Amino acid sequence: MPVDILTIVGVGLIGGSIGRAAKKRGLARTVRGVGRQTASLDRAVAVGAVDEPYLDSAAAVAGADLVVFCTPVDGIADQVLAAAQRCQPGAVLTDAGSTKGRIVAAVEGRLPPGVAFVGSHPLAGSEKRGPDFADPDLFQGRLTVLTPTDRTDPAALERVRAFWQGLGSRVKVMTPEEHDRALALTSHLPHLAASALSGVLPAALAELTATGFRDTTRVAAGDPALWAAIFSHNRPALLAALDLFEDRLRQYRRALADDDGPALERLFAEGKKVRDALGS
Amino acid sequence: MPVDILTIVGVGLIGGSIGRAAKKRGLARTVRGVGRQTASLDRAVAVGAVDEPYLDSAAAVAGADLVVFCTPVDGIADQVLAAAQRCQPGAVLTDAGSTKGRIVAAVEGRLPPGVAFVGSHPLAGSEKRGPDFADPDLFQGRLTVLTPTDRTDPAALERVRAFWQGLGSRVKVMTPEEHDRALALTSHLPHLAASALSGVLPAALAELTATGFRDTTRVAAGDPALWAAIFSHNRPALLAALDLFEDRLRQYRRALADDDGPALERLFAEGKKVRDALGS
Repeated sequence: MPVDILTIVGVGLIGGSIGRAAKKRGLARTVRGVGRQTASLDRAVAVGAVDEPYLDSAAAVAGADLVVFCTPVDGIADQVLAAAQRCQPGAVLTDAGSTKGRIVAAVEGRLPPGVAFVGSHPLAGSEKRGPDFADPDLFQGRLTVLTPTDRTDPAALERVRAFWQGLGSRVKVMTPEEHDRALALTSHLPHLAASALSGVLPAALAELTATGFRDTTRVAAGDPALWAAIFSHNRPALLAALDLFEDRLRQYRRALADDDGPALERLFAEGKKVRDALGS
Repeated sequence: MPVDILTIVGVGLIGGSIGRAAKKRGLARTVRGVGRQTASLDRAVAVGAVDEPYLDSAAAVAGADLVVFCTPVDGIADQVLAAAQRCQPGAVLTDAGSTKGRIVAAVEGRLPPGVAFVGSHPLAGSEKRGPDFADPDLFQGRLTVLTPTDRTDPAALERVRAFWQGLGSRVKVMTPEEHDRALALTSHLPHLAASALSGVLPAALAELTATGFRDTTRVAAGDPALWAAIFSHNRPALLAALDLFEDRLRQYRRALADDDGPALERLFAEGKKVRDALGS
């Protein structure tokens, strides 16, 4: 077993999927799960995501080899710093947060000797929540971004890399800032647009939506508090992404206002080219 | 059989699905399909969408009871007016175009005596194209909007209504202008946003997209020429929808600029409420 004791803090969709994947793939002898509510911990145990449920993270991280924080981004840094005080030397901590810059900056240089942190972000998930949606194959073939810095312990980076690869994920290394700028365009801005499209739809028109509207706005069903925290963490990159998007919208507006069919068709063709390259 | 000869002009995804659905449900004795290319007509015959392929729509509409135009919106009105001259008295013509105002206005009052037109728009489809994607259940449980006016023959409206219901669709009657204003928000604006999100994504970031980006931008893979024609037809309603959307984006921008977490969370909650009500 690569990991003797794996502790997952936050056993929702992502944490639960990590637990189930680790069990299925024989990556950890024991999976401890930390939650705030007995009910969701019970579900995490029931679906096979967790062997040992904990309400107290200090107890759950004692003796753990690897601790993964799958909690909202605005709590991760504090939780990492608190847990690190209870970890054994040699323990490696990582997370699954959707932003990296603020988390990594808040943690770096503040860990006890022998305890390491490496930022992670698995690009997998859904608008669903809770361990009942945990999927042991969630990471299969997906990409996980690791965001070490000059101060990151190289051995810890390799352990975290091996862990995500063991879950079936590919791994890419970026700086926290590169990650956040990229995700502003690939995840956060689409979320904003989907939310805004939903927000301007009068209730009376709901029956006139079809798969196009539903696909385009699906992520808007995500948890508002989680997304508000992500946006707050990634403000400068998101404002820059929003600038780009609004500039682009003005190009469509101009083409519409001028009834410039070739310009519209060119804009659509540029979007199609990018989208086609992604596959279904 | 409710229809003796059904002629479908344009046997792509929508036209092919109408043909397959009509055959499967016993709605038409003979389905004639009109295409511009022998290859796609052959495919339409091969998938069971069409009994008799035609390259010449004048010949295909002669003797037909019902003619459905499933061609790009910028061609429908002219095709209807030309075909109507070759139709027998009592023939009913309809379409499947994504815009209604300009098509209905261009056709009304210009048909020969005894030939009727009723505008239709089945809210079903996909970014896919061609008869190979034709689905006999495409309209099952979906909504088709009919857009009669004061000048529409009531008997023709009832025949078109019965036809779409026979294909499995629910039917809703709206004015052409109501339809176009609604679809600007439920279909055309989401298409614009999806296309713009794709258009601002640097190619190097493609690997950092996950299901969220892919869902949100899926419709951007649609055909640029088809969508440019739809946008050109629905300019005023789309410009008004774009105004609403950009106003909404400015609310997110302000909340981000002010780092106003509660305001962000409120905006996301409003979007989530609308999206949750639509189901998956």
